[in-house]
Amino acid sequence: MVVNVATRLLQISEIFGPTIQGEGLLIGKPTVFVRTGGCDYRCSWCDSLYAVLPEHKSEWRSQSAEEVFAEVQRLSNFQPILVTLSGGNPAIQPLSDLITLGHASGYTFAIETQGSVAQPWFAELDYLTLSPKPPSSRQVTRWDRLERCLEIASHGQNGRTVHTCLKVVVFDEEDYAYARDIAARYPDQPLYLQAGNHTPPHLAEKIDITGILERMDWLIQRTIEDQWYTVTILPQLHTLLWGNKRGV
Amino acid sequence: MVVNVATRLLQISEIFGPTIQGEGLLIGKPTVFVRTGGCDYRCSWCDSLYAVLPEHKSEWRSQSAEEVFAEVQRLSNFQPILVTLSGGNPAIQPLSDLITLGHASGYTFAIETQGSVAQPWFAELDYLTLSPKPPSSRQVTRWDRLERCLEIASHGQNGRTVHTCLKVVVFDEEDYAYARDIAARYPDQPLYLQAGNHTPPHLAEKIDITGILERMDWLIQRTIEDQWYTVTILPQLHTLLWGNKRGV
Ligand code: SF4
Ligand code: SF4
Repeated sequence: MVVNVATRLLQISEIFGPTIQGEGLLIGKPTVFVRTGGCDYRCSWCDSLYAVLPEHKSEWRSQSAEEVFAEVQRLSNFQPILVTLSGGNPAIQPLSDLITLGHASGYTFAIETQGSVAQPWFAELDYLTLSPKPPSSRQVTRWDRLERCLEIASHGQNGRTVHTCLKVVVFDEEDYAYARDIAARYPDQPLYLQAGNHTPPHLAEKIDITGILERMDWLIQRTIEDQWYTVTILPQLHTLLWGNKRGV
Repeated sequence: MVVNVATRLLQISEIFGPTIQGEGLLIGKPTVFVRTGGCDYRCSWCDSLYAVLPEHKSEWRSQSAEEVFAEVQRLSNFQPILVTLSGGNPAIQPLSDLITLGHASGYTFAIETQGSVAQPWFAELDYLTLSPKPPSSRQVTRWDRLERCLEIASHGQNGRTVHTCLKVVVFDEEDYAYARDIAARYPDQPLYLQAGNHTPPHLAEKIDITGILERMDWLIQRTIEDQWYTVTILPQLHTLLWGNKRGV
């Protein structure tokens, strides 16, 4: 049998850090980012189209898990750190080998994915953040698939617990209603709301920090008005600190 | 025997919310703040002197636990929420009755204190954040007392776990060294670093958001330089959102 080695290669857009995780459950934690290339979605406000669109494919590298992990180790100076798998949609890559390699050296792994593709290796992760996309993204949520992601993660492998949470970016009232619906569907999952960046690189020349903070303020008032006290509302720290700059 | 009822009264500077917790372990969580009046410290950069200095005492109210909880309930519209006890130093107040009252109605309690006063009722809390003050504050840390706070919290009461963590505000290299020392003393405690606000109300007319973000950036680079990956670095969200404004 001929094994097609190429199918085990990862499409990598960028590997950078250590920096801090800017959002969600692990906000403020030092981490190295592994950003994969390619995505099954096309969100209207995507802030990382360079890791999504096929026309950027020439900027991506095909790398083995060993090569990726060697780079992560070099960046972290061979000191175990949290590795954040993002994209694009990292769930369309064969990331299991990277996780196994990293775990053997004490590294931990978090993924952020929209939940449109469920992989058996989600059960090997330390953290799974599912960020289903609200109406303003113009994408359609496949609830059965989101469900399947959570189901897989509920059976952590090798005595590991996969910490799961949901994250919704909210731009407007319709997105907010979508987030409320998600909270009703998954009452036991920690839910993070994030004020969206309406000025991502491809839509605006300059990031509108004031506008982002105003939307966050609105989001806080909106949840409190509804006495929705079980949610967590966070900004994207990296946009506040470094704007739309990449690789920080 | 005559019970001096007055000794059971709480010195209250302000009760406000719901808003979100702006810092530390519970960052982004909706909460009502109960800020007590009076403090055994005088930090050089204190941002709530109105809840510290005796000359503000006339602005504080002496209230019973019942009165305080009634106000918390009114603000939260009788919907259980996280109550954050802050100050001044809330540890110098008899807060046990308030916690008991709140728990009976499903409310949870977090406290933030410098760790200079240990109280038996710390064992009744849901969250204890100890924020020992670094050299730039010009206060002296009593390690035996900090230790005692953690010791009490390790024996949660009524089957409750008291989630503990440490938080250090860092302004400069000396503060950073202090934070490193704390991490070495308490390797098992989650540790949060926070870039300080060098422009608190009594020191500056206008808050310097850019300067605060620059210090946070420095703090991130500083920890990464040391490969200090177990720490969490966060801003004060409320200062970014609302500057030095009170009651938000
Ligand atoms: S799912 Fe994420 S990476 Fe893919 S298009 Fe949407 S925002 Fe961009
Ligand atoms: S311990 Fe807190 S409240 Fe007291 S003086 Fe210091 S900063 Fe202000």
